[in-house]
Amino acid sequence: SAPFALIAGPCQMESRDHAMMIAERMKRVTADLGIGYVFKASFDKANRTSLKGKRGIGLAEALPVFEEVRREFDLPVLTDVHTEAQCEEVGAVCDILQIPAFLCRQTDLLVAAARTGRVINIKKGQFLAPHDMKNVAAKVTESGNPNVLLTERGASFGYNTLVSDFRGLPIMAETGLPVVFDATHSVQQPGGQGGSSGGERRFVETLSRAAVAVGVAGLFIETHEDPDNAPSDGPNMVPLERMPDLLKRLKAIDDLVKGF
Amino acid sequence: SAPFALIAGPCQMESRDHAMMIAERMKRVTADLGIGYVFKASFDKANRTSLKGKRGIGLAEALPVFEEVRREFDLPVLTDVHTEAQCEEVGAVCDILQIPAFLCRQTDLLVAAARTGRVINIKKGQFLAPHDMKNVAAKVTESGNPNVLLTERGASFGYNTLVSDFRGLPIMAETGLPVVFDATHSVQQPGGQGGSSGGERRFVETLSRAAVAVGVAGLFIETHEDPDNAPSDGPNMVPLERMPDLLKRLKAIDDLVKGF
Amino acid sequence: SAPFALIAGPCQMESRDHAMMIAERMKRVTADLGIGYVFKASFDKANRTSLKGKRGIGLAEALPVFEEVRREFDLPVLTDVHTEAQCEEVGAVCDILQIPAFLCRQTDLLVAAARTGRVINIKKGQFLAPHDMKNVAAKVTESGNPNVLLTERGASFGYNTLVSDFRGLPIMAETGLPVVFDATHSVQQPGGQGGSSGGERRFVETLSRAAVAVGVAGLFIETHEDPDNAPSDGPNMVPLERMPDLLKRLKAIDDLVKGF
Amino acid sequence: SAPFALIAGPCQMESRDHAMMIAERMKRVTADLGIGYVFKASFDKANRTSLKGKRGIGLAEALPVFEEVRREFDLPVLTDVHTEAQCEEVGAVCDILQIPAFLCRQTDLLVAAARTGRVINIKKGQFLAPHDMKNVAAKVTESGNPNVLLTERGASFGYNTLVSDFRGLPIMAETGLPVVFDATHSVQQPGGQGGSSGGERRFVETLSRAAVAVGVAGLFIETHEDPDNAPSDGPNMVPLERMPDLLKRLKAIDDLVKGF
Repeated sequence: SAPFALIAGPCQMESRDHAMMIAERMKRVTADLGIGYVFKASFDKANRTSLKGKRGIGLAEALPVFEEVRREFDLPVLTDVHTEAQCEEVGAVCDILQIPAFLCRQTDLLVAAARTGRVINIKKGQFLAPHDMKNVAAKVTESGNPNVLLTERGASFGYNTLVSDFRGLPIMAETGLPVVFDATHSVQQPGGQGGSSGGERRFVETLSRAAVAVGVAGLFIETHEDPDNAPSDGPNMVPLERMPDLLKRLKAIDDLVKGF
Repeated sequence: SAPFALIAGPCQMESRDHAMMIAERMKRVTADLGIGYVFKASFDKANRTSLKGKRGIGLAEALPVFEEVRREFDLPVLTDVHTEAQCEEVGAVCDILQIPAFLCRQTDLLVAAARTGRVINIKKGQFLAPHDMKNVAAKVTESGNPNVLLTERGASFGYNTLVSDFRGLPIMAETGLPVVFDATHSVQQPGGQGGSSGGERRFVETLSRAAVAVGVAGLFIETHEDPDNAPSDGPNMVPLERMPDLLKRLKAIDDLVKGF
Repeated sequence: SAPFALIAGPCQMESRDHAMMIAERMKRVTADLGIGYVFKASFDKANRTSLKGKRGIGLAEALPVFEEVRREFDLPVLTDVHTEAQCEEVGAVCDILQIPAFLCRQTDLLVAAARTGRVINIKKGQFLAPHDMKNVAAKVTESGNPNVLLTERGASFGYNTLVSDFRGLPIMAETGLPVVFDATHSVQQPGGQGGSSGGERRFVETLSRAAVAVGVAGLFIETHEDPDNAPSDGPNMVPLERMPDLLKRLKAIDDLVKGF
Repeated sequence: SAPFALIAGPCQMESRDHAMMIAERMKRVTADLGIGYVFKASFDKANRTSLKGKRGIGLAEALPVFEEVRREFDLPVLTDVHTEAQCEEVGAVCDILQIPAFLCRQTDLLVAAARTGRVINIKKGQFLAPHDMKNVAAKVTESGNPNVLLTERGASFGYNTLVSDFRGLPIMAETGLPVVFDATHSVQQPGGQGGSSGGERRFVETLSRAAVAVGVAGLFIETHEDPDNAPSDGPNMVPLERMPDLLKRLKAIDDLVKGF
């Protein structure tokens, strides 16, 4: 029944200055609204549709930036890991390690992430049912780490389309773990542009409202000052300037339903 | 931006007294909350899973009850039609004629319903995309009847399961027509019990909250004083005694988001 | 283990001469190959995507043509019925009455068709699982008519797409009823062209080969001398001139697997 | 137009003796039928549903067995890789490196596998469309390795169910790469038994027949002398004793259609 926390930031960490700019802007917006904020960025987009897609600045360059964001803005930071080898290094700096949806069944990655003792945010695979996530979460908790978040990000629905099944939020909450709704990837159209993924930004608010009304512990929304020119996930990122109004509405719904 | 209206009642019209009891109870509940109310009951369940399923009391017996509900409680009434021949007779009494989801592409039925001049509520077929409904609606509006409601009731998702795609609500609203969310049939598991359909009543509130937060003109919720012994759709009807609290919460969300 | 029968013809009955031309051509082709042939045409396309779609010549004009095809070519004929009222009239002439997929759960239509004593071909709804069809078939058989065919024509798969689940053929065959594969509508893209349905003719052979290899009692393939200018289902009809080679290949597979 | 090759073996490498027994049996069966044979076993099941699922004997123990199978029976061998680090070591021994479906978008794994120069068999993700695989394959071919196989193994269809879309075989073949059909995993019911995956062995022949009739370069079928007691994928493995008859039928269909 605590207010939702927001995990937000650019899809990719593009540069130190870009990350700092977004962290600063989002910290201000969320502080004004009384929303807990976690800065998010990916140092590597490891599963682009095409070999030609930009992948980000890499782990070595990104870690000092995550440290600076934490120190400078006093913010927890989240990033995704793709291999066992990355877990320890990322875990030394970041507060939350995120398991990508495609990798949510990879036992060794989950166990290596668990061993860092950090919070582990597991994205639900597009190929899994909500009730399947209890087995996935147990790979982390039975490895001795009880700090798990489960994130809904859409289920495969025919080809190149995802659908968000909101029954999944209470089903996953039955595990006792906090449930997050990822509005950005839920509106993705995987592979929908041939050589890259499409998306429909206009439905981010639609689906976020639904999630908050159903009840979530957190929201995940990617944002960018100029999404149409972002190196990845542009079609589904929310412009930074629209975040204050969007979050204000979502916070009002959250306040209402958490009071029921 | 008007408050949502509620279409509610038992799945089947079981008897005159049963209909009157539910209409009376629901009128009181909705009046207390300032919610517009439409009484709903089916005189014939024309597409039961099995030949053995109970079908209802029939048109001849039901029409006088609809008249009595209208007169006694000053309520608009809705029922579903299955053949062209029924439209005129039903249209002489009922305020809203509903086209069942399986029949939403039957041109002659849509045109016959349109000609009554009544409001036509078209359920979206489980096999249609939200954007397909503009063609369906046009069969009514181009027949000279602009009074159309479009109702979301779930899309086929694998076998014996439906999923509610909330992107569909704004997509259907682009037609300019009022959009209704049917929470009862969205939680149905078609054919899920072998000889009859199953359902998960516990998700009616989940999906209704989501729909209202996204924004709807109406909600459709079937209710019964003893759902587990109802002749059809028992697994997904809401017990009558739980309707006041449920509607209170939904109305609060509606008030909030309509004020944005 | 009998060779497959072929149900084929134009999507719509366009005119007497057109029907006679196709029946004559197809009779010759199938006789050469030793394939049993049923002439198929629709007198009314009752569920077009749009009100503007052409619907066919109508029942009154079509029935004498069906009679002439039967008499002239000594062929059984099949057409689809949409209302109870049509069943008796159609049953007086046609050998097989077909229940459209959208209507396969309409009890009264199934019972009215059953009462004609004719063979009833029920298309599986796009919204049903193969195992659901035993309940559908029972509505006919329990009405005293054991002569039922079950036809697979694709299941909803996301939006505007169907998928053919070939596990469905043996599952439906467990009813003891002959199972038909409709290759034409399985490659349909419902509503896929906005105001009408699309389709991918190039996969008719792909899916027909698969069906025959799995084992079917019948195939359903619509054909036209000029599909791209046909009034409906053009994108998924097979050009008449390609039918001989297609059927020759399918017959060879059928001969082989029926000999296992 | 070459006859199909068979990739077959136990789901897990259970022991040296078990692997040798199956390789020996399958070599004999395939030689009798004139089918090219690739021995398959997994040294590690890296993505079991639950932490409790058995994972196999591990890479260090498995590699000498693969070497012995190659040497003793003069057979090519295939196994799956899960991390970049494994690729070089596996590539030193095995003829074909297989990319698991969940991992088919992991760029670094694909590139590391490509660099071994071995044949790379990429399983199509359950979350991908057939036309998406051209981008996946290009990650290998643009890394300088043209030796790629694409394997269909079912697409997500609702929850805990897969469906095989046979249109996908010719679509993937448009890349010019050989296409394999994995009949074992296509009949899997992911997570369908709560703590492990279910499956329906009885449809392996159904779907294999369909695939061969459509036309494939290869078939992938897991087999075991006692599937019901196998450590993984038991519900969908074919008993070893049934393989000769199954393959005989599939080879007959393949011979026929490759002659068209």
